[in-house]
Amino acid sequence: MSAPGFSFETIAEDGSARAGVLTTRRGNVLTPTFMPVGTQGSVKTLTPAEVESTGARIILANTYHLWLRPGADIVASLGGLSAFTRWPHTILTDSGGYQAFSLAERRTLSDDGFVFRSHLDGSKHLLTPEEAMRVQGLLGSDIAMQLDVCPPAGAPREEVEAAVAQTTRWARRSLAAKDPAQALFGIVQGGLHADLRRRHAAELGELPFEGLALGGFSVGEPIEEMHAVLSEIAPALDRTRPRYLMGVGTPRDLILAIGAGIDMFDCVLPTRNARNGQAIVRTGTISIKQAQYKTDPAPIDETCGCPCCREGYSRAYLRHLFLAGEILVLRLLTHHNLWLYGELVRKAREAILNREFPAFARTFIEPR
Amino acid sequence: MSAPGFSFETIAEDGSARAGVLTTRRGNVLTPTFMPVGTQGSVKTLTPAEVESTGARIILANTYHLWLRPGADIVASLGGLSAFTRWPHTILTDSGGYQAFSLAERRTLSDDGFVFRSHLDGSKHLLTPEEAMRVQGLLGSDIAMQLDVCPPAGAPREEVEAAVAQTTRWARRSLAAKDPAQALFGIVQGGLHADLRRRHAAELGELPFEGLALGGFSVGEPIEEMHAVLSEIAPALDRTRPRYLMGVGTPRDLILAIGAGIDMFDCVLPTRNARNGQAIVRTGTISIKQAQYKTDPAPIDETCGCPCCREGYSRAYLRHLFLAGEILVLRLLTHHNLWLYGELVRKAREAILNREFPAFARTFIEPR
Repeated sequence: MSAPGFSFETIAEDGSARAGVLTTRRGNVLTPTFMPVGTQGSVKTLTPAEVESTGARIILANTYHLWLRPGADIVASLGGLSAFTRWPHTILTDSGGYQAFSLAERRTLSDDGFVFRSHLDGSKHLLTPEEAMRVQGLLGSDIAMQLDVCPPAGAPREEVEAAVAQTTRWARRSLAAKDPAQALFGIVQGGLHADLRRRHAAELGELPFEGLALGGFSVGEPIEEMHAVLSEIAPALDRTRPRYLMGVGTPRDLILAIGAGIDMFDCVLPTRNARNGQAIVRTGTISIKQAQYKTDPAPIDETCGCPCCREGYSRAYLRHLFLAGEILVLRLLTHHNLWLYGELVRKAREAILNREFPAFARTFIEPR
Repeated sequence: MSAPGFSFETIAEDGSARAGVLTTRRGNVLTPTFMPVGTQGSVKTLTPAEVESTGARIILANTYHLWLRPGADIVASLGGLSAFTRWPHTILTDSGGYQAFSLAERRTLSDDGFVFRSHLDGSKHLLTPEEAMRVQGLLGSDIAMQLDVCPPAGAPREEVEAAVAQTTRWARRSLAAKDPAQALFGIVQGGLHADLRRRHAAELGELPFEGLALGGFSVGEPIEEMHAVLSEIAPALDRTRPRYLMGVGTPRDLILAIGAGIDMFDCVLPTRNARNGQAIVRTGTISIKQAQYKTDPAPIDETCGCPCCREGYSRAYLRHLFLAGEILVLRLLTHHNLWLYGELVRKAREAILNREFPAFARTFIEPR
């Protein structure tokens, strides 16, 4: 049933929280894990070695972007995404559907798929479940995602029900069309309706996906409503397969979701916020451009072991670089933020192994 | 006479070319040397460790930029430029005059100095020889440069003569005002007039500068005219002191100038061109955005040991990153270009030590 080289094992549980090992043809990924986002085949500002230094052994790349530029055929001709990007570990690609819907122009949805126009050059494209599989096969990622329909926050229940049904039809078509060498994850929709989520999780759980994802969260709904549904639904996802919460979130969101039984995360927050001058620390956020840091000799976080904090770059210097438009500060803050996410999942895993996750979660969440 | 910890020794000569050791309070710099430019206190896109990996042990920082932002007092309060930027080796600062003249608005020149308005906020500043010394003292660089007057290419001889005279008056005022802990270099002007250059070199050579620079080249004159004057003038600069050719140049320019007896260079070319997608190779330049590299699996240069070439990034991937606006490619090309400059001066030095510089120079220049 599984793609060659793919496996998942839970090695410890603490309440609903799980510590496991996800194995792909590229090697092992300890879970829970955070996947830095490399939208266009680069985790923005960093080298693969720097991403690896944060503890990450899996990154996410965006099918929509790479399909349009440089083109999936070019990536394939250069040996696939791992060879192309020099990232030697696991790569997960999304289906392209989310960006085709949110970024592209004049997109329309039919039972067959999405028709959209490229945000780059206006060219017309048809994204079907089969095309999403073909493109991800050419990109050569280790884990592919099915094409799904993701309703916006606040969509009426009947729209959410239709999205769930369409996603299930596309799930079957995706499995029929997949590259046998790739693992494929299904995507559970259902918005904030726990009953729809539960039913969809059961439906997709009967299909031979290597993993199950929760899509359609973090689309603008109040975050506490997400966590309320998550605490009910995550434990209901088949326990033998990895569970992936798409597009989430803050450190607090990760801790709560790990507590609910999620194994995998991706989010642009640590990388995007860094490029906006935001350093994430356990107690909140440091906006480096603020005047209060003008002469501050302290590093971002005295207790952090990342290169930005360890090499002694002061807040005053980082602020200067940011105001002067220097690229170095974007690198340093990105490295810092991903380091914090890496530490978070590593320490969460240790806490689960030691059966002390609830206490760990409290220390991580309460100071905020 | 010299600043504490400052010395210069020539250890080998081959024709006019020299191999030496420049020593400052921060350590040794093997000459000939190329100084990467860190305009705003950062060699653009790179960390200090990466700059160091190219062989550089001295960088240049721009007084004008750092004076206006973050302010020399702030840099001083954080321990000076080395502590502020985390560059542990030697730093040379220019006087600020060149940028005050070329970047600032509504600047006027008097015998006292330059009056200019900041290009950042329009604030009015007066840059005198004494102020240039005060600001460089606050910045805490290891080598300071005197304020000079740099006439544009093609200026009439009488304007060049006036600039030479003014520069000599300012040389004396600079020496009187200098921070005793800093080394100070004088700047020889004279445009393309070999007689003026020779006279000015002799004049400044009588003053207790720790080094002598050639300014006013690479300001738009035909490059072969510069080399013609340089071959005559560089050997005439006092041989006991380091000779610095300001703002030059291409690899070929460096080789020719080293042959004329120059010890130190700075230029934005390798860093600026990298950010424009230009990789410098011995045989010329690779403009990475060109369509011919679309599927090219080769690195920039198979024979190069820099991280960009060694880690196997293909021209196709670098082209993709550049077209996609990804910062990583700017880092990789900058690192590559500075690596090439570092190799160039290292190999030139070896060739001088082995008394085979002319043959080395030919192999470096002829393929271009």
